[in-house]
Amino acid sequence: MRTSIATVCLSGTLEEKMRACAAAGFDGIEIFEQDLLVSPHSPEDIRALAASLGLSLDLYQPFRDFEGVSEDLLEANLYRAEAKFSLMNRLGADTMLVCSNVATASIDDDGVAASQLRRLGEVAAGYGIRLAYEALAWGRYVNDYEHAQRIVDLADHPNVGTCLDSFHILSRGADPSGIEKIPAEKIFFVQLADAPELSLDVLSWSRHYRVFPGEGAFDLTAFMVHLVRSGYNGPVSLEVFNDVFRQTSEDRTAVDAMRSLIWLEERTSVRLAEQNQLSGNDAGSRRYPMDLATLPAVAEPTGFNFAEVLAEDPGDVEGMLFQLGFSCVGTHRTKPVRLWSAGGARVIINQQQARGLAPAISALGLDVQDPPAAASRAVQLKAQPVSRRSQADEAVLQAVSAPDSTEIFLCEATGDGTVAWAEEFGSDGVVEGEPLITHIDHINLSQPWQHFDEAVLFYESTLSLVPRASQEVPSPMGLVRSQVMCSSDGAVRLALNIAPMALEQSGSHGGPEYPQHVAFGCSDVVALARQARQRGLDFLPVPDNYYEDLQARFRLDAALLENLQSLNLLYDRDEDGEFLHFYTATVGNVFFEVVERRSRYDGYGAPNAPVRLASQYQRVRSGSRDGAS
Amino acid sequence: MRTSIATVCLSGTLEEKMRACAAAGFDGIEIFEQDLLVSPHSPEDIRALAASLGLSLDLYQPFRDFEGVSEDLLEANLYRAEAKFSLMNRLGADTMLVCSNVATASIDDDGVAASQLRRLGEVAAGYGIRLAYEALAWGRYVNDYEHAQRIVDLADHPNVGTCLDSFHILSRGADPSGIEKIPAEKIFFVQLADAPELSLDVLSWSRHYRVFPGEGAFDLTAFMVHLVRSGYNGPVSLEVFNDVFRQTSEDRTAVDAMRSLIWLEERTSVRLAEQNQLSGNDAGSRRYPMDLATLPAVAEPTGFNFAEVLAEDPGDVEGMLFQLGFSCVGTHRTKPVRLWSAGGARVIINQQQARGLAPAISALGLDVQDPPAAASRAVQLKAQPVSRRSQADEAVLQAVSAPDSTEIFLCEATGDGTVAWAEEFGSDGVVEGEPLITHIDHINLSQPWQHFDEAVLFYESTLSLVPRASQEVPSPMGLVRSQVMCSSDGAVRLALNIAPMALEQSGSHGGPEYPQHVAFGCSDVVALARQARQRGLDFLPVPDNYYEDLQARFRLDAALLENLQSLNLLYDRDEDGEFLHFYTATVGNVFFEVVERRSRYDGYGAPNAPVRLASQYQRVRSGSRDGAS
Repeated sequence: MRTSIATVCLSGTLEEKMRACAAAGFDGIEIFEQDLLVSPHSPEDIRALAASLGLSLDLYQPFRDFEGVSEDLLEANLYRAEAKFSLMNRLGADTMLVCSNVATASIDDDGVAASQLRRLGEVAAGYGIRLAYEALAWGRYVNDYEHAQRIVDLADHPNVGTCLDSFHILSRGADPSGIEKIPAEKIFFVQLADAPELSLDVLSWSRHYRVFPGEGAFDLTAFMVHLVRSGYNGPVSLEVFNDVFRQTSEDRTAVDAMRSLIWLEERTSVRLAEQNQLSGNDAGSRRYPMDLATLPAVAEPTGFNFAEVLAEDPGDVEGMLFQLGFSCVGTHRTKPVRLWSAGGARVIINQQQARGLAPAISALGLDVQDPPAAASRAVQLKAQPVSRRSQADEAVLQAVSAPDSTEIFLCEATGDGTVAWAEEFGSDGVVEGEPLITHIDHINLSQPWQHFDEAVLFYESTLSLVPRASQEVPSPMGLVRSQVMCSSDGAVRLALNIAPMALEQSGSHGGPEYPQHVAFGCSDVVALARQARQRGLDFLPVPDNYYEDLQARFRLDAALLENLQSLNLLYDRDEDGEFLHFYTATVGNVFFEVVERRSRYDGYGAPNAPVRLASQYQRVRSGSRDGAS
Repeated sequence: MRTSIATVCLSGTLEEKMRACAAAGFDGIEIFEQDLLVSPHSPEDIRALAASLGLSLDLYQPFRDFEGVSEDLLEANLYRAEAKFSLMNRLGADTMLVCSNVATASIDDDGVAASQLRRLGEVAAGYGIRLAYEALAWGRYVNDYEHAQRIVDLADHPNVGTCLDSFHILSRGADPSGIEKIPAEKIFFVQLADAPELSLDVLSWSRHYRVFPGEGAFDLTAFMVHLVRSGYNGPVSLEVFNDVFRQTSEDRTAVDAMRSLIWLEERTSVRLAEQNQLSGNDAGSRRYPMDLATLPAVAEPTGFNFAEVLAEDPGDVEGMLFQLGFSCVGTHRTKPVRLWSAGGARVIINQQQARGLAPAISALGLDVQDPPAAASRAVQLKAQPVSRRSQADEAVLQAVSAPDSTEIFLCEATGDGTVAWAEEFGSDGVVEGEPLITHIDHINLSQPWQHFDEAVLFYESTLSLVPRASQEVPSPMGLVRSQVMCSSDGAVRLALNIAPMALEQSGSHGGPEYPQHVAFGCSDVVALARQARQRGLDFLPVPDNYYEDLQARFRLDAALLENLQSLNLLYDRDEDGEFLHFYTATVGNVFFEVVERRSRYDGYGAPNAPVRLASQYQRVRSGSRDGAS
């Protein structure tokens, strides 16, 4: 599959954009006219740069408001077009996007539109230019791809074809299966964009909120299947107008974009094979012109292997782990790294001498069936491999860096509760009794606002975690957006949080960062909280007002309410079961949670999140945040 | 008019919110339940704090999903309500907001809803509580205020009345004139919110985009006129859910909120008087229970008096002024401050010894008829007065600080081209010939994203500038939002720009700030540009590609195009006329523009803004931004 991307997707100058596209591995680009127009480089310079970067110039766009106009205006439009054709000859671009008329069309007649397009096609032919006519979703008379296709058919000129744009088609709820009916040679270009579900006017939705495939709500795999079946074999190009991508690093956005296409390509290949199988065709028996690459197939992760906390002084964090019932079961034989465990939950404490580093979650390990295959897949999806210094006889750990810089280790799932790398840790600790904690239930990672969509796609494509519904949680510093990503059986649960920008900015100025946490699952949270209190754990306090409201909402048994209140436990209930949980104080940028899921409760106590955030805010304000005591 | 505000409008803890409301001058507050629920302070503590701050607790809210339910659920809801009534007694709040049922209503029958509300009213009466029933715009069966009123009438209980919320009424396009038909004693509470025009689903619009009156598109003055005519005399309370306000300083947001009510109160008073006059009533002959305060009436400003640039080393800025044809006409007799002028344009260069300050626009002067009255009005609208050290015999200048910290001086309009304060400057410069520059055409100020709505309201309420349509301009660092604020005849034009957040963040980290500029009007921009080039002005370069596109779009006369291109002039044309302009290099955070408006062109060359932004970005990238040479 040939990959391409419109320069408007990225920030920076045209030159910076082109370098970023080449570095991310795109085969070609669409030149967005505005980017050329503001560039100090001549068309010849841009052509030479593209050649030196190995990028083809697949499309020049947009040419607006051409057809369906009076003769006067048509003459001016042809003059304007010819100037652009001559420019395109200098650039070395041979396909121009012609958008259906929005502003100046006055004649609602397919015959007139077609004959005007044919005239444009005749002029274009003299320059060796092909015209790809696209129905904008908000075109005045033409806003549907099948309508555009009828006009192209009427125009009946070899230099006039169609451009299909997934946003314009899917945003209007049109059925993309009609794509299969278009002759492949008349599909001159294809643009892809995904978008979140928003009940916003389609123009604003298109101009500000498009995202890369897999980051939104459209079924782009189905779209691609129709496209492949049509016999199309030209570039598949991203055209994403997004306010955030426009203002973040072009290098990073280009990688995110490329990842989306690699993943979409694989999913399309898989979906096609499934459908061929369903319809009784052998997957190999039906060949399409478009060649689809695949990735190593890997099973989804089966659990958390460990969480790692990095700190200069991890004393307070280790103290909290002890209070929660963890035992230090070993020290790395060569590094100042300790392994704490309780039941199936493992926390690695990585002490760093330099840097004055406040404790923070730095890595997490996931159990996977085939770590090298999983790592290879992630790297093919443009994840950055992580290299940690290791001695020759240490276990080779496969790891990649997530968009928020958390390191994700892909560990071998053993099934017997042991871990392959444990032998590097001596056994200097004795585990007392049966711990109440059983496993890591979920890990909550804060995300920079600029990289949220990228993170969702990263976790979904590389780790097969599926996004659940997102939530917005009020805090004293603004709304926190929370997006859970889950494996299908819930064994791996990540909660990605975006903190309010003001909070993030205060963090970058030396104020509080938005803290992250590890939540441990346990079999009896009341007993565990009692034990932790005896060991002196600093619980995050819960206001009395909360318990009054809880009682008004749930009419709890008096003994349960008394237990909850005396132990700073939070409570939630839904039709599936009950949820009891508590939080520790925050140390540096990390805190812990302990949860007990009763019956089939599958949530995270969302109604209680504002209570936690407010209580943490109170602690920061009163300056006691950094002390666990 | 009694003023109130819901705690949900502000960031911070309940205590911080209350202190901010009191400091801004509110008479009372609505306690938003969530704010109390997450507070470590008891209801009794909050009551005592309110009393000590002089705030009444006007409303407790929200009570959700009560009416139209099965008997079982009704019983649970009454239990829940009674717990809240008892809490309200402890708080000392006597009115509760009951929102129309969204989630649990199963009986679409006004008789059932009314009888259930009557039962709630009977229980509430035992606690001395009044219930204000409100139709949410997305209520399941009740989503219109007149429908809610019919149910209140049917309930027919003295403790059951109505709550009117401008958002819920106006967002659905309902006619607010029906308010006048509601008996005043049945209107238990009134909530106000404005909102921008958005074609978004009403729930998202309400939860994220509400703004304070005057910051959006609703006609809240008309709403208020109906309310006053109904005979209502209770609190007028702000209830604004806004993602930005939630994350910015509560003190500042509370002042912004109070300004909106003071201004709305005045406008309501003026509109009522106008309408009474139209209908033949004398303004004084009709009295309403609600007492409306007014402000000093002032005429709109008639022009720019000056712009001030502050700098440690203003040499490059003064060099550019000279190159543009300005003359230094005086030095302040006691301060290192110089006055430069050209035609009716004046620029004050204020040299500051300390601080390593890069040149920036620090103040602007506006010509007004009655400076003391204008300043008094601004201060009554909560603008911060500016105090500059001045000697006893210096002119007393009236000034206030705008939300972006620019100081706005209110100067006496003399009409003869002189200024009252000029005598403080000696006359050590000689003006050569007739300058081509005639006046300050507009000033472009960058705004922090957190304070944009506040800024629009500030300039509209204190300076009578009216917002024109806003625009979004693509730049290599993201979209720049631009909002022009104008006096009615265009003599004063401010362009407020919000830079992309990433750019702003880079600025706060020592990278480039988003620069501001002063645009000078001139009678012959081609002649001026030639003269400036002779004097060595560093023009902002304009790419050749731009001129090719210009030619394709406008088919300009070859001589004009040659003039434009050789002088780095930009061009625009619309049905009203033509616009020619050029930009200087940026020095520190300031640059200049020279514009020539031909015929009745009234815009700002919006299609050229991306060219400027890209060219400035190129200069920053290539590191030559700080040198004017």
